[in-house]
Amino acid sequence: LIRDGEAVTRAALTARTGLSRSTVSQRVDALLAHGLVYEADDSVSTGGRRPGRLAFDHRAGGVLTADLGATHSRLAVSDLAATTLAAVELEMDIAIGPERALRLVCDQWDALLDETDEPRGGIRGIGVGLPGPVDHTAGQAVNPPIMPGWDGFPVRDWLNTRYRVPVLVDNDVNIMALGEHRKTWRQTQHLLYVKVGTGIGCGIVSGGQIHRGAEGAAGDIGHIVVPDHQELCRCGNVGCLEAVAGGRALAMRLAAEGYPAADSRDVVRLVNEGNAVAIRIVREAGRTIGEVLAACVNFFNPGVILIGGDMAAAHGQLLAGVREVIFQRSLPLATRNLSIAPSQLADGAGVVGAAIMVVEHLLAPAAIDRALRASA
Amino acid sequence: LIRDGEAVTRAALTARTGLSRSTVSQRVDALLAHGLVYEADDSVSTGGRRPGRLAFDHRAGGVLTADLGATHSRLAVSDLAATTLAAVELEMDIAIGPERALRLVCDQWDALLDETDEPRGGIRGIGVGLPGPVDHTAGQAVNPPIMPGWDGFPVRDWLNTRYRVPVLVDNDVNIMALGEHRKTWRQTQHLLYVKVGTGIGCGIVSGGQIHRGAEGAAGDIGHIVVPDHQELCRCGNVGCLEAVAGGRALAMRLAAEGYPAADSRDVVRLVNEGNAVAIRIVREAGRTIGEVLAACVNFFNPGVILIGGDMAAAHGQLLAGVREVIFQRSLPLATRNLSIAPSQLADGAGVVGAAIMVVEHLLAPAAIDRALRASA
Repeated sequence: LIRDGEAVTRAALTARTGLSRSTVSQRVDALLAHGLVYEADDSVSTGGRRPGRLAFDHRAGGVLTADLGATHSRLAVSDLAATTLAAVELEMDIAIGPERALRLVCDQWDALLDETDEPRGGIRGIGVGLPGPVDHTAGQAVNPPIMPGWDGFPVRDWLNTRYRVPVLVDNDVNIMALGEHRKTWRQTQHLLYVKVGTGIGCGIVSGGQIHRGAEGAAGDIGHIVVPDHQELCRCGNVGCLEAVAGGRALAMRLAAEGYPAADSRDVVRLVNEGNAVAIRIVREAGRTIGEVLAACVNFFNPGVILIGGDMAAAHGQLLAGVREVIFQRSLPLATRNLSIAPSQLADGAGVVGAAIMVVEHLLAPAAIDRALRASA
Repeated sequence: LIRDGEAVTRAALTARTGLSRSTVSQRVDALLAHGLVYEADDSVSTGGRRPGRLAFDHRAGGVLTADLGATHSRLAVSDLAATTLAAVELEMDIAIGPERALRLVCDQWDALLDETDEPRGGIRGIGVGLPGPVDHTAGQAVNPPIMPGWDGFPVRDWLNTRYRVPVLVDNDVNIMALGEHRKTWRQTQHLLYVKVGTGIGCGIVSGGQIHRGAEGAAGDIGHIVVPDHQELCRCGNVGCLEAVAGGRALAMRLAAEGYPAADSRDVVRLVNEGNAVAIRIVREAGRTIGEVLAACVNFFNPGVILIGGDMAAAHGQLLAGVREVIFQRSLPLATRNLSIAPSQLADGAGVVGAAIMVVEHLLAPAAIDRALRASA
C-alpha cells in the first residue's frame, strides 16, 4: 500500500486495512527498522502538523537475478523497483551441470556487485529462471529435457546456503510473462508470453498471477502436435510445434538448402539480410505457431499475446504469420480486443521478471510477518 | 473463517486476522444481526467460562439458482452451504427470448419456494448460468450464438429489480467447474470441466478461481479447429470441434445412416442399447475431443479434467477415447498425476456451482462491509 501510494500515513493504513492502530504501528516500525520504508519529509513544507508520511525506499536493497538459457544467459543486480542496476550476458552451455553453472553465475554476480554501488540494505533475495519445467515450491527443475544433471538438483537450497537470503526459482518464460505484465501490461488480467528461440514455450498470466499448472508444466506449447507434420522432436514424438517451427528446426531446413545457418540467430540474420527463402520459412513458421495459438486463444481468451525470444528479432515476418492465422481461426469475441505484439522488454524480460517475483515475495504479508517474528 | 472452522471465537478472529478487537467485535455483531452466524452453546457443557464460540448458520438464508440450457434448464433453491433444498427440470427453448424465459424461471422459483420451508433470512442472492459467453461484471450475455434476443439483455438488473438481492450471472460451464471444484476437487488448484452436449464447452479453474478470460470467452473449445475435417459449424467456420464431435453432429451422422437420432440424448440411448455404430462414433468423438484436450493439457497443465453434459451419460466410451489420445499426445510431466473422470455432480453441477458463486460473493469481505454500511 505504501509502495503504490495507496495509503501513506499510519492513519490511512489503519483506515484502509481495518488493522488495529497498534498492529499498524508495529508493522510500520518493522518496515522502518528494515529500512524498507522511510519517513518522507516533503509534507513539512506545507506547514502545520507533520502527518508522518511514509515512502517505500526502492534503493533499500538489491536483488540478484539470473535468466539461464540453453547456451546463453543473462545476469543482473536490481533494486527493489526491479530496475536493473547492472547486467551481463554469459555464454554458457547449461549442460555443464548445476554446480559448475551456478558457480559461474555466482562469480558473475560478485563481479556485478563490485562494479555497482552496494545497495544500503544488502542483497535481499535471489530470483532464477531455468529453461525447463520447474517445481516452484521446491525450487528445482523437474525432468528438464535440455538440462542434463539438473533434474532434482536443489537450486534454491544451494544458493540459499551461499547467500542466506530467500531464493525463488521458476521457469524462464513464467518470469518473462510476469516482467512484461507488471512493467508494460498491468491493465490486462490475462497475458501470454510466447518465447520463440531454439525451442518454443509460453508463460501464462491468469488473473494477474503466474499460472504454473499442477506440475509446473503449464505453457509447454512447443510439444503440442501440429497436424500433417512428421518431423521427429527431441522429446520423442513427431510433429511437435517446436520441431516444425522452432529456431533450430528452421536453421536445419535453411542449412539443408545450402544456406549458412546453425541456430535461431543465424535464421534472424538471414531474414534481416533479405534472404527470400529465410523470409518465406519464418513467415510459414509464424502461421504454424498461429495455428497452435489460435486454439490457446479460444481456450484461454488472453487480452494480449507477446512474442519474445531470439526469433522475435525477425518479428515483422513472424508476427505477420501469427496474426494471419489467429484472426482467421479464433472466435471474433475472443479476438476483438486482442493485442498481438513483440515483447517490450526484449532480452531483459527474464531478469526484470525474476526481480519482480522476488520483491513481491519479500513484500507479501506472510514474508513481513516472518521478518517480524525473526527480529522479535 | 467461522464457516470453515478456522477461527470461531472473537479472540481467535483477532489473532488470526490482525484486525483490532473493536473491528472484529463490530463485524461479528453485524453477522449476528444478519443471522449469518450464531453463538454456539456446545461449549457450555465443558464447564467454566463461556468462550463465545461462533458458528455459521447455513440455514440462515436461501439462494435461487438457474442453469439455463438451449432446450432444458434446471432451477433450484439452495441453502448457504449450497445444498439443494428443492429443484426442478424445465423444458424450455432458450430462443423464446430473455423476458419470456426469465418470467418462466421466476414462476418456477416461486413454486419451489412454496414447496420448501422458506429459509429464515429469506432469499439472499440469485445465481444464473447461461449457455453462451457472459460479461460477468455486467451480468449479461455477449454475442451468444444460440440465444437470439439475449445479446446485451440486462439479466442481472432485470432479476435484481424483481427480487432486490444480489444477482450473479455467468457462463454455464464456469459455474459447473466451480461447483465440482468446491464440492469434490478442492485439493487441486487447476481444473477443467468439459461439457459435451449438443455443443462442447469448457469451464476453467486456475488457482482455485474461475478463469473467465479477457472477454468472458475463455473455455470456448467447441470452436477450436480439428485437422482434416470440413464439417460446417453453426459459427460459420469449418472443422470446429463441436461440428465434428458434439452431440448434434453425432446424432446427424447416425440419422444419415438410418438410426433414430435427433439429439445428444438419442445418441446416448443408442450407445446404452449396445448399438455398435453409435458406440464406434462416440468412441471416435472421444478421440477427437482428446486431440483438442491434449493441446489444452500441454498449455494449461490441469490436475483434473471432468467430463459432463448429456453425452457424459455415455462416459465409458467417451472417456476411453479422450484418455487414449491425451495420454498418447501430452507430455509425461503434464499427465503423470492427471485425473480424467466423469463429473461427480452430474446434472446438478450447474445449480450447485451457481449457489457457491453467490455465497462466496455474499461472504467476501467487500460484501460484508457493504452490508455493514447499509445497516449503519
